[in-house]
Amino acid sequence: MPYRSTVHESLAAVFQVRQLRTTSAGRPELAVLLWQRALDPERGTWALPGGRVCDDEDIETSARRQLAEKVDVCEVSHLEQLSVFSDPDRVPGERRIASAFLGLVPATTDPRLPTDTSWHSVAALPPTSFDHGVLVAEARARLAAKLSYTNIAFGLAPPVFTMSELREIYRAALGYDVDSTNLQRVLNRRKVLSPTGDTAPPGPTGGRPATMYRFTDSSLRVTDEFAALRPPG
Amino acid sequence: MPYRSTVHESLAAVFQVRQLRTTSAGRPELAVLLWQRALDPERGTWALPGGRVCDDEDIETSARRQLAEKVDVCEVSHLEQLSVFSDPDRVPGERRIASAFLGLVPATTDPRLPTDTSWHSVAALPPTSFDHGVLVAEARARLAAKLSYTNIAFGLAPPVFTMSELREIYRAALGYDVDSTNLQRVLNRRKVLSPTGDTAPPGPTGGRPATMYRFTDSSLRVTDEFAALRPPG
Repeated sequence: MPYRSTVHESLAAVFQVRQLRTTSAGRPELAVLLWQRALDPERGTWALPGGRVCDDEDIETSARRQLAEKVDVCEVSHLEQLSVFSDPDRVPGERRIASAFLGLVPATTDPRLPTDTSWHSVAALPPTSFDHGVLVAEARARLAAKLSYTNIAFGLAPPVFTMSELREIYRAALGYDVDSTNLQRVLNRRKVLSPTGDTAPPGPTGGRPATMYRFTDSSLRVTDEFAALRPPG
Repeated sequence: MPYRSTVHESLAAVFQVRQLRTTSAGRPELAVLLWQRALDPERGTWALPGGRVCDDEDIETSARRQLAEKVDVCEVSHLEQLSVFSDPDRVPGERRIASAFLGLVPATTDPRLPTDTSWHSVAALPPTSFDHGVLVAEARARLAAKLSYTNIAFGLAPPVFTMSELREIYRAALGYDVDSTNLQRVLNRRKVLSPTGDTAPPGPTGGRPATMYRFTDSSLRVTDEFAALRPPG
């Protein structure tokens, strides 16, 4: 049986918690990096960065290259595979099977973007290309799930932060508020954070100087295993 | 730039906890389904079931079809995507990009297998084809991780079981023993199990009749979220 020509591509939903200019309330939001298609099909819609996997690279190498080449994002703090998007009709024309990725950029970096590319609030996406909106939703769901049983917030947080800054990151990424005291208690118990020894200067309303923290690890680990199921020793 | 011809394939590591004939000690082990290659390349090595994704199917449909057609496994209790294996040189000849899957079969089913196919202890694999051994290791690691923060054991357990039978499933899947009392306490707290109302007849040594349980859900859910990070309400 002859097979249809098939391309394998990588596509990355890169998230950052940032102050979007369009936000009047002024609180940071979870944002995703999109570029606007200048050509058909679906001209004018917003697409995730990505493209064809080259012969000499694996899919993760390809995803990192496309982020560097196409949207000038050279450093992601975390990149992980999501599912593969393989509906035979997901794009018109030649079949494209897409390996989806979740990428994270720390809140304090501000990559220089090409003119067709910008950050968009995940809560208010513009019209997206093909199945890219579904991919963004899957990436966000994965992020929210991993916030609850891993240290993945290291990928979104600045290098050092106060607990109230970290709470803003969690609020933006989860889409709802979390209690600062509970958050601190949980993260301390899981040994996810380390105090830096410094304090932040008090804000305009005064009060105690806030303790500065950093994430103990800068790669993903599961923090919330069943204690009863840990390996012996 | 011209591109090398590339095939997209699915490959599934299907696990079952079963009594393997080669085990003298007689306790059930985590087993994986492999078939022996009759042709080169790598003739005689043991491979995971899978194959080329057809034009009219997505990768999960393809994985299920190949399991049914090639190893006669028509029912898996759980099937989930692992990572994509995409090293340009992972197999000789035409490039093959493989979507890997983890599949689970309940301990009580005994699928009829083709003559070239058999169950093998994950702890003592025969020589495996290409990168299939790495894939089995990744599948096993995913299973062990998910045993600690999800209800994934529903995919390996019989429909109803005693706590000591379930403990054998966990022991085999994790590769180390777990305490039965702890296991029961943790699973009860997470509301993963429901008592059926029946008891098992006492064994040859007598004792109290054992309570029979079943898994409350037959699809995957995360059971072990940070309580502090649950959505409101």
